[in-house]
Amino acid sequence: MTAPAVGRAQVIGTGLIGGSIGLALRARHWHVSGVDRDPDRARRALEVGAVDRVGDVGEADITFVATPARSVVEAARRALDAGGVVTDVAGVKAAVVDALPHPRFVGGHPMAGSEQAGLDGADADLFIGATWVLTPTESTDAASYATVQSVAAGLGALVVAVPPRRHDDLVALVSHVPHLAAATLMNLASESALEHGTLLRLAAGGFRDMTRVAAGHPAIWPDLCADNRVAILAALDRLISELATVREVVEGGDRDDLLKLLSRASEARRNLPAGAPPPGQSVEVRVPVPDRPGVLAEVTTLLAEVGVNVYDIELAHSAEGERGVLVMVVSASAVPLVREILAGRGYRLSASRPGS
Amino acid sequence: MTAPAVGRAQVIGTGLIGGSIGLALRARHWHVSGVDRDPDRARRALEVGAVDRVGDVGEADITFVATPARSVVEAARRALDAGGVVTDVAGVKAAVVDALPHPRFVGGHPMAGSEQAGLDGADADLFIGATWVLTPTESTDAASYATVQSVAAGLGALVVAVPPRRHDDLVALVSHVPHLAAATLMNLASESALEHGTLLRLAAGGFRDMTRVAAGHPAIWPDLCADNRVAILAALDRLISELATVREVVEGGDRDDLLKLLSRASEARRNLPAGAPPPGQSVEVRVPVPDRPGVLAEVTTLLAEVGVNVYDIELAHSAEGERGVLVMVVSASAVPLVREILAGRGYRLSASRPGS
Repeated sequence: MTAPAVGRAQVIGTGLIGGSIGLALRARHWHVSGVDRDPDRARRALEVGAVDRVGDVGEADITFVATPARSVVEAARRALDAGGVVTDVAGVKAAVVDALPHPRFVGGHPMAGSEQAGLDGADADLFIGATWVLTPTESTDAASYATVQSVAAGLGALVVAVPPRRHDDLVALVSHVPHLAAATLMNLASESALEHGTLLRLAAGGFRDMTRVAAGHPAIWPDLCADNRVAILAALDRLISELATVREVVEGGDRDDLLKLLSRASEARRNLPAGAPPPGQSVEVRVPVPDRPGVLAEVTTLLAEVGVNVYDIELAHSAEGERGVLVMVVSASAVPLVREILAGRGYRLSASRPGS
Repeated sequence: MTAPAVGRAQVIGTGLIGGSIGLALRARHWHVSGVDRDPDRARRALEVGAVDRVGDVGEADITFVATPARSVVEAARRALDAGGVVTDVAGVKAAVVDALPHPRFVGGHPMAGSEQAGLDGADADLFIGATWVLTPTESTDAASYATVQSVAAGLGALVVAVPPRRHDDLVALVSHVPHLAAATLMNLASESALEHGTLLRLAAGGFRDMTRVAAGHPAIWPDLCADNRVAILAALDRLISELATVREVVEGGDRDDLLKLLSRASEARRNLPAGAPPPGQSVEVRVPVPDRPGVLAEVTTLLAEVGVNVYDIELAHSAEGERGVLVMVVSASAVPLVREILAGRGYRLSASRPGS
């Protein structure tokens, strides 16, 4: 209560993401004012402590625009006029950043939360261990970027900077098109099982996993599909074309080609960075390593042998190409053990950043 | 130890499924002999108690053929020659049952377990709450069917009888093609993210869920795809054609069509029978009901209002078409409440079978 406020933030749109940002900032002693087109929701945000003031604050140190996609640009423009650094949380970035070529605007996309919940699902720990993409452009000034970067990292997120179109291509491939594919698979199965509902029992765990995302509320999808139409169409085309190749392989009965295709997928899936550790317990450790094949395997094997889970791992390459930095997310309690094990092989932790 | 053996079973192939069947039968006081083409694995099955004897037993009351798919028919033939009821666990059924038109053969497919684990993953509780498909044909004699049905149900499984081709069509749609689609999505994403590994961080929970099955070992897939080629090709064609429709909808920017498509999927996914309750806690209750529309909805609404989860539900129709039996799987602890609530509306539980 008596800790001094570290800054003054504004949240426009106090739903799941905006509310979670508010809660997370307030837990870190920020002043947070909030507005929402629905005055009841803004009031509830005040009640649950996601904001400490309802209404337009004028210039804030940082403004988070967390409105529905179609209102982002207009809301961000108004906030830029008032002053301060402005960022947004929309799931498609090129359209937004193209419309806002302003030094104090930094496009953002925290990859956390579910589309299913509103303010009731808001959670101060939502961003801990989550990836938070920022999409600076040549208009963005460095100080504004640094502000958003440090605030997002301070909320526990792993911040990555990605060019806006690249972000949109990637989310088309790893989010939008998979969602559309899940919905399509679900519809096909349910049509076929219609006359015999109990047969959906044949849908084992894998099918449940694959179609889980399709259960979400569809309301946000028309906007997403419209905003990211070009990238989604390109990704759908690639998916359809690859499925046609798979079809040929199955039809031709070529065991080797099929094995190759599935082995590649299996390896890629097993190398997918694992999920984040429980909220509040993640730590990022950095280990300078020689940039050569086998380093990742050596370190992960060492840690696996002593039972340390590596939730995320990345080998950041140096410009020279001979040294790199291994960045790993592990649980906070594992850090001493990680330090000891790696020291035994001549590696040294260069830094460790608490995740919360 | 001193309980009398209830019967003599044989397991051919002591991997994950065969080993689990052995453990589950032994826990229920069966004698179980086991054979495996790998003598070491058969010995290990003996060590872990999945069988109490290694080697060919001659005639058993029931023989489970749990070998790799390509060896099933030959192994089943030998077992049929020796005598007793014979069933198998292969994931594709038409090819197997067509090759074995024998009164004492009953095709089967327990939908449990992961392809990733061998005997080490064997678990006596693997089948509790799992769906176990049987595919009787006109050659199958009723007594043989009843034997397999009652043994499988005795291991805790929910047994459903499905025509073999229907089974194959369904698993193509809810298992084989989803698996191929997951592998395809994973490959597309990993190709695109190759030069920037960290971007796979953008793959949030939905993508992880969707591609999880692709992590499995691919070794079983060439056989599955060969055995179920026709159904898989048909399902792939439907998937590709539906995705082309989705593409048109996205390209045309038709918000209503997109919403309709995604809402249908969302509703179907939310109506997908939920997973089984924790092992050992599932109970099947049977309630005679008038066979008319709305009965399912009425009963499930009643139970939902008092917080009872219905893990599985099926309306078994009577031949006359006027009465049916509602078969539901609920947690054991909920049975008194279910009984009370339904009694209040004039329904009576006719039976309840512990799931373990």
